[in-house]
Amino acid sequence: MATLGAQHKHKVTVVGSGNWGTTMSKLVAENVKENPTLFEETVQMWVYEEDVVIPKESRHYDAGSETANKPQKLSHLINTIHENVKYLPNITLPPNVVANPDVVDSVKDSTILIFVLPHQFIPRVCDQLIGKTMPWARAICCTKGVDVGEKGIRLMSEAIGMRLNIYCGALSGANIASEIAQEKYSETTIAYDPPPMDSRNPTPKGSPTSSQVDLISPSKTVPSARSARLKALPSEYPPLSHENVRKLFHRPYFHVRMVSDVAGVSLGGALKNIIALAAGFVDGLGWGDNAKAAVMRVGILEMVRFGKAFFADSVKTSTFTEESCGVADVVTSCMGGRNFRCAKMAIERGETIFEIEQKELNGQKLQGTSTAYEVNSFLKSQGMEKDFPLFTAVYNILEGNVKPEQIPELIEPKQ
Amino acid sequence: MATLGAQHKHKVTVVGSGNWGTTMSKLVAENVKENPTLFEETVQMWVYEEDVVIPKESRHYDAGSETANKPQKLSHLINTIHENVKYLPNITLPPNVVANPDVVDSVKDSTILIFVLPHQFIPRVCDQLIGKTMPWARAICCTKGVDVGEKGIRLMSEAIGMRLNIYCGALSGANIASEIAQEKYSETTIAYDPPPMDSRNPTPKGSPTSSQVDLISPSKTVPSARSARLKALPSEYPPLSHENVRKLFHRPYFHVRMVSDVAGVSLGGALKNIIALAAGFVDGLGWGDNAKAAVMRVGILEMVRFGKAFFADSVKTSTFTEESCGVADVVTSCMGGRNFRCAKMAIERGETIFEIEQKELNGQKLQGTSTAYEVNSFLKSQGMEKDFPLFTAVYNILEGNVKPEQIPELIEPKQ
Repeated sequence: MATLGAQHKHKVTVVGSGNWGTTMSKLVAENVKENPTLFEETVQMWVYEEDVVIPKESRHYDAGSETANKPQKLSHLINTIHENVKYLPNITLPPNVVANPDVVDSVKDSTILIFVLPHQFIPRVCDQLIGKTMPWARAICCTKGVDVGEKGIRLMSEAIGMRLNIYCGALSGANIASEIAQEKYSETTIAYDPPPMDSRNPTPKGSPTSSQVDLISPSKTVPSARSARLKALPSEYPPLSHENVRKLFHRPYFHVRMVSDVAGVSLGGALKNIIALAAGFVDGLGWGDNAKAAVMRVGILEMVRFGKAFFADSVKTSTFTEESCGVADVVTSCMGGRNFRCAKMAIERGETIFEIEQKELNGQKLQGTSTAYEVNSFLKSQGMEKDFPLFTAVYNILEGNVKPEQIPELIEPKQ
Repeated sequence: MATLGAQHKHKVTVVGSGNWGTTMSKLVAENVKENPTLFEETVQMWVYEEDVVIPKESRHYDAGSETANKPQKLSHLINTIHENVKYLPNITLPPNVVANPDVVDSVKDSTILIFVLPHQFIPRVCDQLIGKTMPWARAICCTKGVDVGEKGIRLMSEAIGMRLNIYCGALSGANIASEIAQEKYSETTIAYDPPPMDSRNPTPKGSPTSSQVDLISPSKTVPSARSARLKALPSEYPPLSHENVRKLFHRPYFHVRMVSDVAGVSLGGALKNIIALAAGFVDGLGWGDNAKAAVMRVGILEMVRFGKAFFADSVKTSTFTEESCGVADVVTSCMGGRNFRCAKMAIERGETIFEIEQKELNGQKLQGTSTAYEVNSFLKSQGMEKDFPLFTAVYNILEGNVKPEQIPELIEPKQ
């Protein structure tokens, strides 16, 4: 048994309590309960505190009660009625999920931190946690996407890991949160591959401050230099092997495959949104299922090429072609995701996608459009636009430089 | 130039004139016209002759003409109005497609034979052609599927090639014929990998008769023994390289990728129908897009495993995970194909799929159900049912041994 001789258990904190964060808390709480030798029973969930009125349509609404129609603290509500009425209504949470509005307190003594925050909140929340997490804590980042700029590409997991000076893996897959919350069957991919770490005591001083954390330029990452600063898990804890990490996430309705390719898993979740736009364009033209499948296939191969070009040492082809975070997430996103639907609508109505964003999303930007621009700016800086004809075509369609009808000629392989 | 010094051109015959065969004739005829140094201008299309009355809704229907409402020969109609009004209405064929009701005459002098026949007609049509084809002719099989029995697996291309003692490759992809006939963008995969051949004259006597052609048992194929009997293309012809074969099929709206994995391409077109049934089952349960994508992903990996197990030397993983004949065809089939739709309907109505076949398809069998039974019978004979949990689950659902709701637990990886 992996846990023989272990004296401590792992304490788990979910940092985030939106739709996806609450879903994660639910399934992780179910698993810690089933694995009492590995994990402490209580799962902390950090809640960005807000005042919430129980909606009239909620099963928890009681017109006669003294709190009816009165704002209550979200964390208090979650801890009393065991439901996140605002972000995951109608799903009962296990009582061992404990909402905590204090982010620093929520990670106290935790050895496993699961980050499920909106992209833009990651830096500021992590900054609050610098020096407050256990030195040997491990993190898993469940936020999809990467930061792409002209200077380079930064994975969310790296942004977290470097700020907190801990190892951070990534979870991504064909994962529509509401379906998983309802325990409908799905799969996911977890990339977890900690480097060798320093096992000496005491823990090293001087965690980096956020100002020291720079963008990672391709081929500039030096994991060995970093890993020397990471602190090994003391032997009193059960090891955080693939097997034990999987036990924290795998459910009968949520099948987990463990891999070691953090960059691939992270890139998949970002680049699929560009593909979903392309699929929406050809579907909007009424070109049928052959064309949609073709664009998806070409897109998956551009994902592979992108990973190999910019993360040569770490990315595996199979992460994109065989795992949930690759091919399956592309399929789900191109069947009915928001990027797909808005792109299709733009073509059908003869409007730009920016007009659709204004009208249908109250001006909110689609992830696909911003990723398409970021990736194009990066490819331009590398002189590699031509090596990614589909990603480049999507950018040029958004810019009005080419028409969606030109996709086949633009992506036609030269032989 | 590949054609330097060549004195002969390749003559092309399409054997078959249904929906897909007529579409193939159209696109091949467009290409021979554009490559006059490689190919003769006329494309022969063998037509199974029948009497056809031009339908009233056809643009060729002329109430005042003396042929109105009178049966005419299908081949005559195609050669005069340049449309297959019965099997591909409203699509104009290039005038260099020549319909020929005599199958033996249609292949005379042809060096390229494109087989596009319904599965069940292949043996009897090929039997008529034994000894009648050019000894150095090459074939491409566009019929999807494989013959699977307890004794082994026979690829359609092998059934053709062994009967006629010629080399036969395979074409398969996310290819709904009507969309391609309308020149909507799609892709395909062509597997073409002729072995070294005998270049001595005269041509070897004694082609095998059909009774000599046995099922190929896995790991029993001896291509070297066979290839010694195959006749090399005389040097007066342009070589039938990947480049030249691609020129015969690739169109601006029909992108071709050439590979060498005939077994993989053929298996993809057969096994995807089992996956489409599984996708229909989970969609019928209302499980959403995560579940559907998961089943597709697991299915693609079982395709890979099947190919590796039974065609170890020839099958490549990437054929399934990266080519149109693999991942893209699975996507198309699981978005709206017949197998998917009938499986979904069965679950929604609480009926068996056999009742759906009776009611919706006039008792016609779905390809997916027969393939699921054939593959299961073969896997049982090899003692390998457990290695293919999704294929086995589909069979057991069809048999009523398990419920569709059990799919997640049945395919759950043991770790």
